[in-house]
Parts: sequence; C-alpha cells; structure tokens
Amino acid sequence: MRQAGRYLPEYNATRAKAGSFLGLAKNPNYATEVTLQPLDRYPLDAAILFSDILTVPDAMGLGLQFATGEGPSFQRPLRTEDDVKKLKIADLNQLKYVFDAVSQIRQSLVQDGKQRVPLIGFSGSPWTLACYMIDGSGSDDFRHAKTMMFNRPDLLRQILDINIDSVAAYLTEQAKAGAQALMIFDTWGGLLPDRWYQSISLDSMKKVIERLPAEINGETIPIIIFTKGGGLWLKEMAQIGAHVIGLDWTMSLSKARQTLVDANKVIALQGNFDPLALFAKPEQIQVEAKAILQELSKAPPIKKGLHPLDGHIFNLGHGISQFTPPENVTVLANSVLEYSQLLRRA
Amino acid sequence: MRQAGRYLPEYNATRAKAGSFLGLAKNPNYATEVTLQPLDRYPLDAAILFSDILTVPDAMGLGLQFATGEGPSFQRPLRTEDDVKKLKIADLNQLKYVFDAVSQIRQSLVQDGKQRVPLIGFSGSPWTLACYMIDGSGSDDFRHAKTMMFNRPDLLRQILDINIDSVAAYLTEQAKAGAQALMIFDTWGGLLPDRWYQSISLDSMKKVIERLPAEINGETIPIIIFTKGGGLWLKEMAQIGAHVIGLDWTMSLSKARQTLVDANKVIALQGNFDPLALFAKPEQIQVEAKAILQELSKAPPIKKGLHPLDGHIFNLGHGISQFTPPENVTVLANSVLEYSQLLRRA
Repeated sequence: MRQAGRYLPEYNATRAKAGSFLGLAKNPNYATEVTLQPLDRYPLDAAILFSDILTVPDAMGLGLQFATGEGPSFQRPLRTEDDVKKLKIADLNQLKYVFDAVSQIRQSLVQDGKQRVPLIGFSGSPWTLACYMIDGSGSDDFRHAKTMMFNRPDLLRQILDINIDSVAAYLTEQAKAGAQALMIFDTWGGLLPDRWYQSISLDSMKKVIERLPAEINGETIPIIIFTKGGGLWLKEMAQIGAHVIGLDWTMSLSKARQTLVDANKVIALQGNFDPLALFAKPEQIQVEAKAILQELSKAPPIKKGLHPLDGHIFNLGHGISQFTPPENVTVLANSVLEYSQLLRRA
Repeated sequence: MRQAGRYLPEYNATRAKAGSFLGLAKNPNYATEVTLQPLDRYPLDAAILFSDILTVPDAMGLGLQFATGEGPSFQRPLRTEDDVKKLKIADLNQLKYVFDAVSQIRQSLVQDGKQRVPLIGFSGSPWTLACYMIDGSGSDDFRHAKTMMFNRPDLLRQILDINIDSVAAYLTEQAKAGAQALMIFDTWGGLLPDRWYQSISLDSMKKVIERLPAEINGETIPIIIFTKGGGLWLKEMAQIGAHVIGLDWTMSLSKARQTLVDANKVIALQGNFDPLALFAKPEQIQVEAKAILQELSKAPPIKKGLHPLDGHIFNLGHGISQFTPPENVTVLANSVLEYSQLLRRA
C-alpha cells in the first residue's frame, strides 16, 4: 500500500511545494521525494512508487480532476455506448512522468553503491479502474459500473479489454524503468457477486499477468495481487499466476496459508494489519502486530523446510488513513521486526 | 431486508403525508401502511417491519436527527469516558411506537380470517449500533468506533453490554407484540479484523440470542443473523444459536451450505441476490435469480431427505437502492417463484 501520504508532515510540505496532488504525482522529482520519505522515517523492507491508480484512465483521455474538498473525478465518465466506442488504450507517452519517477527512485535508492530496498510498482486492476471510469468518481456501490456489467456486459467487456492492455503495458514499462515487483490493486473486486468476481475482475487480472513478460532485464518480476474482501476467493486467486496475494484484515492468515498449501500452491501472502489499528495506543499496536505473527506461526509452511513466517510480507490490509499518527507506524514497524526475530529464534 | 422504501412511489406518498422519515417511522399507522405496501405489489413470503435500526440508540437519549440532504446522525455521540458512563439501556417506553406498529401490522395482515404472510421484526446488532453511536453518523470506516475498540476496549465493552441488554429487550418486546421471526442486522461486522469480529460483534449477537426467551406466546421465534461480509466467518456464525444466517452476494451458496453441513449444523440460509442486479434488464434479472437457485441446487441438503432448495430464503444480500425500478422487483419475485418450482419438479 502507499507508504507516503497526508499523515506525514514531510509529505504535506512537498505537496505544498507542488501546489496540488496532480502537480505532485506528475512531477518525477516530487514523486521521488515523497516515495523516499517513509524510508527515512521507518525501518521498511521495500519502497512503493508514489502515484495514483487513476493516472491510467487519465492517459486514456477521461480528464482526471481533483476539485477542492472533494475526491478525484473524471470529466468524461463512460456512460453510453458512444463513450465506450471512443475509448482508446492509455497513451504511455502521457504516463512518461511515472516511468521517469520509477527510474529516478531506483537511482536514488542506491547509497554507497548498494540499493537500500527494492522498489514496487503498481496499477489498479482492470475492474477497479472500470469502476471509476464508469461511475466517474468514488462511490459506495459503483452503481453505474455494476449496472453496465449486468445490463450491457458487452460494453463492460470492451472497457475491460482496453484496461487489460493498458495495465499490462503500463506495468511492463514500470518494470523496464526499474520496478522490481508489480502490484495490482483490486480495491473494488469485493463489490462483485460470487461468479462475477471470478469472470470479471479475477479473469481480467489473469489476462494482465499473461501479457507481462516472464523476465525483464534478466530478472523475474514478482506479481502481487490484492482484492479487498478477496479472502473468500483465495483458492481461485491462487490460480492466475501471481507470486503473492495481498489480504485485508478480515481473513485469518493461518486459514489463508492452509488454503494455499491444500491447493498445492507456493504463493506468498501479504497484509493483513488493519490500518485503523494504527490509531491504538503503542501497547495495543504491539498486541495487534504480534497476533498476526502468532496466527501465522500456527500455519503450515509455504513449502517444506521453511519457517511459517517465511513467505509473508507484513503490510497494512489497505491504505493508511490520513489521520494516522506517524509515530504509531514506527511502533508497528519496530514491533514486527522485534517479534518476528523472536518467533524465528523460538 | 427492508422491503418498503424510497424506490416505491406509494412509500414516498406516505412519507410526504408523514412530513419526515422520523414522522413516518414513529407513527404506527404510517409504519403499518408502508410495511404492507410491498405485499400488495409483489408476491412476497413475509413482511418485514418498517423501522430504522437507529431508533434504539435514540431511545438511549443520543438524539437521532435527519438533517435535510444528509443521512441520520446523533446529536450526542459517545466519544469520551464521560459520555459512556452516562449511557443507559434503551427506554422501551420511548419505543412503544415500534411495538404498537408490530401489533397493528399483525392485525392488518389478517384477511378473511387468515394471516397473509408472517411478520419479521428486527434490530441492529450491538456492534453495528455502537458504530453509529460512537462515530455519530454513517462512515466509510467508523474510525472513532474502531479506535475506541483498539484503544479503550473497556469503554466499548460497556457500550456493547448496554446494547446487548437493549437489543434483547427490544426484540423480546417485538416478539410479544406479534413479530414471528427476529432478524439481527450486523451491517458493520465486516469492518472488523478476524479475531475481533468473533470477540466483539459475533459474541455480542450470541449474548443477545441467549437473552431471548426460548418461546414467546407458545411459539419458537426463529432468529436470523446477518453480517455483511460475513461469509468468511460462516462456521463461527453457525455456533451462536441462530436458526438462519443471512448472506450477502459475495459468498457462494453451495459453499455456504457445505460449510454448515460439514459443521453438523441444521441452519437455514437467507440472501444472496445482489441488490444492484435489480438495475439489470428483465432477462438478466432472471439469469441472476436462476444462477442463485442453480448454485443452491448443487449444494447438499440442509438435512437428509430434504430438497437442496429447502432451507433457503431467497432475499437481497443487503438493502434495496432508492433508485431501483419497482417493476424489476416484480421480475425478480416472479422469476424466483417460477424457477424454484421448476427445479423442485425436476
């Protein structure tokens, strides 16, 4: 999940310099600056590109805007057959600032000839992007997107096909520019009914993964998929070629690991700390972090000979709230490091 | 789920007469009128009391208000230790309008000496009520409620204890007044992390069920529990004494039935039609209804000798959208009746 953000005073200072969220996201210098800020503050294992999933539909010509006091929205949402017919794959030239940011971040991560941590790139999933592209902004239920799905599945399919091509090309370019793992965020897959999740959102992510090159610059790039509320569909998620599955905080990690082991899949897990638990007092943050690691230590190993804690990337189960006290993230990161070392020695 | 609502012109006409939502909900004549309206329009198997879950905290003195253009909110949310200390169990005298409505609806359901359909009463779950009582209004993440849970679990426990007593007393009175089944809506249980769901929301519902009399007026009253996003916790939900578990649309019914059969539990299921599928064209509504019934017909029977379709109450997986075309509900109800008869004959 995004590490930088409005909860950090240093992020707000950079944003103020940039003038606006888009001014920040579209400027590689600023994007590099805020991507690195959390690494200077917290003992983190990886950096994640600072960007926004909606820059991809923006590069399809939908006109991303941030009205003051409101969330992001598109000037030209896709509501009619005519809107959909005109839709074209994202223009990667218009996303050059993202690839430039990736290269610049990679370079900036090198200290004394060594890379501090690996860099993760990301994209929204084809379905999650379609939700915003059709509804035009955030929503409780993405009624317009789901209505199109039920009512004009042919139109939704056209949008998804364009999104699949766009996301695959976008992620490939990020990897070429230096991203060392790629994450696909499917924030709204969990709004879908069983069966539709599989045929719409999961199938689209599968097609993205199929289009990604097996190796880039001679390296395998691990693919992480995350569906909010996806715990129910873990077995199906394990079948689409991802190396890691991200989980929100509703799913038990030991149950998740058991499901993957039963399905004969060597797939790592990521997550599942509730971002709201960062509002707890320090002792309780420690309790919550330990509970996740203990839960995991009861699980079967990802494959024979490994420790149960291997193959899990500790992370929040979704985005960090803007109201999070930054010092609480320090407590969490330290608890995870200390307690996981303790469990490994035990 | 609520059958009446803003999607029905006849409901809007009654609401206009009542002057406001609370004027409608607090007047037994109007509440009776709108409870019966859907029965005249659709071939339904049951009526559900028209009311609002927030009337219970209102009767605890929190001051429910509906500002124009906004959702409901409380004048006095519970944010401090002092707020919580002053909290008292709901005053049932202040909820007399609900029990009067229940009696009046029961009487009005009798036609030619026969009751048309049974009447379902309901309440919010202790945790879901606490979410609104602490945050003070609807929210994406109920940050204040969850912060209290992580930070001051002792305060949340006091609120939950009062809610458990209040909900149990409230449901008992509804049953005494004539409700023939009781539903507990846990809309926000799915916001909780695994482990917390079990110890906070599920445990509170268990305590409510334990406090309900085994029989009222010589009849067993079936208890229905519903947690939005609860599919992951179905096995645990089966252990708290409910007769029926409601499911949203993300859970496969055949998997759900299999889980209950494996756990040796004879528990009926309710749900799981996506309310947004009511925005589809008629043919697609039929397809969606059939898919649910077909899914169920692949499931093991609830107990030996029964048809797989037995022990399932077809219903929406959550509330109906105010923008739903009323004629589409007719299509759904007819499809379910026709296709379930066909499957039973097959």
